[in-house]
Amino acid sequence: MKNAIGREIPEVIGSRNVSPYAGAFSTLRADRKAGRHQKGAPQHENKILPSLEAAIEATGLSDGMTISFHHSFRDGDRVINQVLDACARKGLKDLRLLPTALFPVHAGIVGHIESGLVSRIEGSMNGPIGAFVSQGGRLSEPAVLRSHGGRWRAIEAGDVEIDVAFIAAPQADAYGNATGIKGKTPCGPIAFSAVDAQYAKHTVVLTSDLAPYPVYPMEIQQGWVDYVVVLDEIGDPDNIASGTLVLTKSPTRLLIAQMTTDAVVHSGYFVDGFSFQGGAGGISLAATKYLGDEMEKAGIVGSFGMGGGTKMLVELLHRGLIRAILDGQAFDLDAVRSIREDEAHVMIDPGMYANYDSRGCATYKLDAAFLGATEVDLDFNVNVNTHSDGMLLHGIGGHQDVAAGAAMTMITIPTLRGRIPVIMDSVTTVTTPGEVIDVIVTERGIAVNPKREDLKERFLAARLPVRSLEEIKEEADAMIQPVRKPVFGDEIVAAIEWRDGTMIDVVRKVEGFE
Amino acid sequence: MKNAIGREIPEVIGSRNVSPYAGAFSTLRADRKAGRHQKGAPQHENKILPSLEAAIEATGLSDGMTISFHHSFRDGDRVINQVLDACARKGLKDLRLLPTALFPVHAGIVGHIESGLVSRIEGSMNGPIGAFVSQGGRLSEPAVLRSHGGRWRAIEAGDVEIDVAFIAAPQADAYGNATGIKGKTPCGPIAFSAVDAQYAKHTVVLTSDLAPYPVYPMEIQQGWVDYVVVLDEIGDPDNIASGTLVLTKSPTRLLIAQMTTDAVVHSGYFVDGFSFQGGAGGISLAATKYLGDEMEKAGIVGSFGMGGGTKMLVELLHRGLIRAILDGQAFDLDAVRSIREDEAHVMIDPGMYANYDSRGCATYKLDAAFLGATEVDLDFNVNVNTHSDGMLLHGIGGHQDVAAGAAMTMITIPTLRGRIPVIMDSVTTVTTPGEVIDVIVTERGIAVNPKREDLKERFLAARLPVRSLEEIKEEADAMIQPVRKPVFGDEIVAAIEWRDGTMIDVVRKVEGFE
Repeated sequence: MKNAIGREIPEVIGSRNVSPYAGAFSTLRADRKAGRHQKGAPQHENKILPSLEAAIEATGLSDGMTISFHHSFRDGDRVINQVLDACARKGLKDLRLLPTALFPVHAGIVGHIESGLVSRIEGSMNGPIGAFVSQGGRLSEPAVLRSHGGRWRAIEAGDVEIDVAFIAAPQADAYGNATGIKGKTPCGPIAFSAVDAQYAKHTVVLTSDLAPYPVYPMEIQQGWVDYVVVLDEIGDPDNIASGTLVLTKSPTRLLIAQMTTDAVVHSGYFVDGFSFQGGAGGISLAATKYLGDEMEKAGIVGSFGMGGGTKMLVELLHRGLIRAILDGQAFDLDAVRSIREDEAHVMIDPGMYANYDSRGCATYKLDAAFLGATEVDLDFNVNVNTHSDGMLLHGIGGHQDVAAGAAMTMITIPTLRGRIPVIMDSVTTVTTPGEVIDVIVTERGIAVNPKREDLKERFLAARLPVRSLEEIKEEADAMIQPVRKPVFGDEIVAAIEWRDGTMIDVVRKVEGFE
Repeated sequence: MKNAIGREIPEVIGSRNVSPYAGAFSTLRADRKAGRHQKGAPQHENKILPSLEAAIEATGLSDGMTISFHHSFRDGDRVINQVLDACARKGLKDLRLLPTALFPVHAGIVGHIESGLVSRIEGSMNGPIGAFVSQGGRLSEPAVLRSHGGRWRAIEAGDVEIDVAFIAAPQADAYGNATGIKGKTPCGPIAFSAVDAQYAKHTVVLTSDLAPYPVYPMEIQQGWVDYVVVLDEIGDPDNIASGTLVLTKSPTRLLIAQMTTDAVVHSGYFVDGFSFQGGAGGISLAATKYLGDEMEKAGIVGSFGMGGGTKMLVELLHRGLIRAILDGQAFDLDAVRSIREDEAHVMIDPGMYANYDSRGCATYKLDAAFLGATEVDLDFNVNVNTHSDGMLLHGIGGHQDVAAGAAMTMITIPTLRGRIPVIMDSVTTVTTPGEVIDVIVTERGIAVNPKREDLKERFLAARLPVRSLEEIKEEADAMIQPVRKPVFGDEIVAAIEWRDGTMIDVVRKVEGFE
């Protein structure tokens, strides 16, 4: 069947019946969410277990079950590998992983897939695991990719059941209260796991810093936690900023950041109380910095900036240019420190941030958002998951949630990466539909979605370089070199959920190249 | 049928089938909790409604439905009366009220019961409403009294469904984020309503201080809130400390406070990391003060004190005698200020505090608790709900939750009030069973539950005045004047739930006096 944006979607994927994407705000379930598992506790109890193996035994973790993790340590995580190694030692097989995201540090999972320990993955797969899965024939069912808000929603709705949630906690007490902003290796908020902790049949907190009761803030509450295991190491915070989080030095990207800032300033949204979110890419970071300077110049104070928390955002708070930061994950250690020290740097969980099945998300309060993409197309559809070689290399993150929420969503991209085109006739994979994208900013000009004539007029009045996306594409296409086009097989290796649980696209096996 | 402590309980009360009390930690439900209602929201939405009447219309509130409230303003609340008056103006009838607690300020509810607007009440009824209900024939079904933790549990379990939650919020933004510790009239934590907000079909925030987005800390989250109504007045914080919250000047009570402190000091629990909770009565407040002095003398630092937050507790934190305060409700304005200013004064919700159906309550981490009573009996059962004239005049509060949780629960009572006895052969109403009571401290001596020979030995070794409860009773009985004994009718006016949802006792109509 074809979904609302014309993507061919099977009616059944693996063991699930598929609801096709029907529009960004089309579904409204009238039924109830899943009920949490009843838990009780005796008056006094020791929740401390001596090892991961002991936790596997105590929770009854066995073949075919689902285990979950958060990604707050990003590429510095040491928990997922340790847990899977322990599962391997216990001879388990056929596990389903439900991480929020996997990173290159988790490349060892490839071996666990080959050995049969891991047979399914639902979660973002940044880098090697995604590339491996793209080869096809690796998992027993297609992977499922969800946005931050979509994952929260799916767990609450009962779309996916967690048997054991393993939660890396930089600091925890023996009764299970835990936080990510304190301890020996603070990584920032860990409330991505709050929904896991509440809905899992069993919840295990893993910490390298067992502190006296009570540990606070209670991002993870004792009442949700069955067991606590102390590990020598849970993660390396120096790696949370790895990957995309470097302020760009590329003149092209700095130009795009400047044009993005100009567009915001002339959008009509740039007034007192203005709110915004940038992604973690170099362009977004630069745009955040430029935007702060413009706010200062104009005497505007923003209501809030939203994170991933970064040094750039914290500086805006400290300069009094925004009244608050709403932060679900730290992208650098300056952000972690600021959460501890600045009352106005407020931790929020992904439910508040982005849950479609709620009475309103923080993303819905955004005036402007600037986000990245691997590809865009002439319908303004955005791909952040696959590259044009067809390989599944990135997760969704909050892309869908922010794009759907912000009054003005801007995609900030160079038209070429090397000499590979970024603007396509049709994106390889649709992550986020064009209907929620307002503006695409490139070094060759600013394209405005035809739905937003109002913005186009404002930009033209401000003499910004507004051009049609077709025109920009044509100009860029003259400079591309022939790329090796993927040949896709029939096998679906991953399903891309829209944030409401419907299916917006699928990713197929890469069989070779033309 | 008789329950585990020998109280006669009917199998059916009103429209509910009764599970008899079976022991303090006997039930363990293996099933699931209730699912929350699915809610959705468009991208941009105005949740502000112009009036309570508009909120009644928008939520579809109609005859026979259930509405809920918190009691954080205590006797200063202005919301319940305004909402009920609006319901009366809309011609509604047969509503069920689910407040956390009612106070004398809500005496006007008597008129609403008489008019048929209110026909059922589940919640604490301090003072006039309880007295009125005690007369019998007033409500269409017996009232239900639950502890703080019991109410949270009941809502999560689906024992009681809320149609519309009305939440008094000292500060809120237009999207529904709300807190009790800021604004024009801060009253302290309002997270008693967090479970209402999450489980109600509709949630309405009522505020007298609409502040710019985002209001934080988000005790109530936007994603749970359907509508926001601005009212001129929601409550008077000067009245949160009314009633019991006065440091006693009575020599008898000060003596009891001193003996309580002595008992704690010699209990074996009085070591570094010690934790405790006092109630809101004069003896408890004095004992908290004395205990702080003993901690200072002994060089002991406690792990946490638990609230109701009071000036006494805050002083201990400021003197460095406890590392943290865990606080679910403020009993005075010093506590409210401290929550705003002291990072270690941590707000917790009643779920974390006391939910039986969780993997451990904060009350389970208590070493010592000193609580009040209207009556105790020779089985160490405690009554906090009725007086010996049979009248239902008080709620349960956290009494059951704390008594069940603390390693050493002490009831601190004078043996006589005026010349009315406090120690009975059998309490008029069992609120909290003797099995979770360890020590009863009176001005005539300290009685130790026979289950706690260990404590008795320690107290005797410290030459504390340990006596049997029978002996103390006999001595006190010599001084009583004849009291008018109530004559109870058959009608059950209220059911007293144990914190796990089983029935520990019932309160019957007072028909007259002997």
